[in-house]
Amino acid sequence: VELEDGDVVVVAQKVVSKAEGRVVALEDVAPSRFAEGISGDRDPRHTQVILSETARIVRLRPPLLIAETRHGFVCASAGVDASNVPAAGTVVLLPKDPDASAERIRGRLRELTGRSVAVLVSDSFGRAWREGTTDVAIGAAGLRVVLDLRGRRDSAGYELQATTIAVADEIAGAAELVMGKTDGVPAAIVRGLDLAGSGTGSDLVMPPDRDLFR
Amino acid sequence: VELEDGDVVVVAQKVVSKAEGRVVALEDVAPSRFAEGISGDRDPRHTQVILSETARIVRLRPPLLIAETRHGFVCASAGVDASNVPAAGTVVLLPKDPDASAERIRGRLRELTGRSVAVLVSDSFGRAWREGTTDVAIGAAGLRVVLDLRGRRDSAGYELQATTIAVADEIAGAAELVMGKTDGVPAAIVRGLDLAGSGTGSDLVMPPDRDLFR
Repeated sequence: VELEDGDVVVVAQKVVSKAEGRVVALEDVAPSRFAEGISGDRDPRHTQVILSETARIVRLRPPLLIAETRHGFVCASAGVDASNVPAAGTVVLLPKDPDASAERIRGRLRELTGRSVAVLVSDSFGRAWREGTTDVAIGAAGLRVVLDLRGRRDSAGYELQATTIAVADEIAGAAELVMGKTDGVPAAIVRGLDLAGSGTGSDLVMPPDRDLFR
Repeated sequence: VELEDGDVVVVAQKVVSKAEGRVVALEDVAPSRFAEGISGDRDPRHTQVILSETARIVRLRPPLLIAETRHGFVCASAGVDASNVPAAGTVVLLPKDPDASAERIRGRLRELTGRSVAVLVSDSFGRAWREGTTDVAIGAAGLRVVLDLRGRRDSAGYELQATTIAVADEIAGAAELVMGKTDGVPAAIVRGLDLAGSGTGSDLVMPPDRDLFR
């Protein structure tokens, strides 16, 4: 597949994190008493890594922990994952700065192909009230991530009042459908959208003052 | 465009609701004192319709109301919408039974085309902690809506423990990218997936006993 200008390249967080060395060997971790207390059947050192990545605990039903990360993302286990890791006894963390990761990948793709593409770094997040995860964008470069339609009018002339669409998350979810979880496919290309811009993954975090659930 | 067996036809809730007569004229609504009290700049009769569709108030920051509907969906304004309505002074409700709606549409498409397709009824839902709406599936017929990968192994042999993917929501979000909100396109076809099955929109509602946010 050759890249074209305007393509959106969606790259799975796991492969980005591994490339950036965001891997922790559990043998180097000393669990706290709190980590031991909430671990259940999980390795308490794994729980300790989760707690180290947690800026705030949003919900705790041991061993399940919903955390706010330093980036502001709210997700299970602060994004720490033990699947598809590079070696037994390791866990993978989220990238330190997923927007910087997306920008770096975008620059590298431009060097390699001469094409101007957008890049999303995606991860699977659970959702309040709904079953299952959907992939969302945690980092972005080169595209609009939220379409703000407020002020536009529908076909009857009604002015839309609360319509902002998280297109980057919809793109990440669409990409998940072709990447899968156990097939080792870490990237997908979404073509035919017209969304060039300069949004970031941070733009997709609800500001606390408008957040009814923080 | 001709339908093919296995296509997923995504139909916007709004057009389904209109076809099913789920439209309320505000002139027929008498607002309660409570509706008046929380309406702010909104027409209190509109608020009254929202309250009538609400099984439980999840969050209230007047005039913003996050509701659990009778279907179990948690969404803004109980899914009641004043955009893209059939006439001024009306609002549109969610279908009474979106899974039955999807099944009906699926049957009708089979009659008209001879093709066996899946149908999703989609709507735009906000999300806790994240900016913007994404389209999700509120009704489904003819496909799996949640892929349960628990027990499968990654390439390193690690057994996935908590991986269920809400593919129907990812499909609905992908369809939104080509439908838009002000273009009057009420349906999209998603082709190339292999998800035949018998999931429902109800399957996408998190059961209360596992829900940390209800």
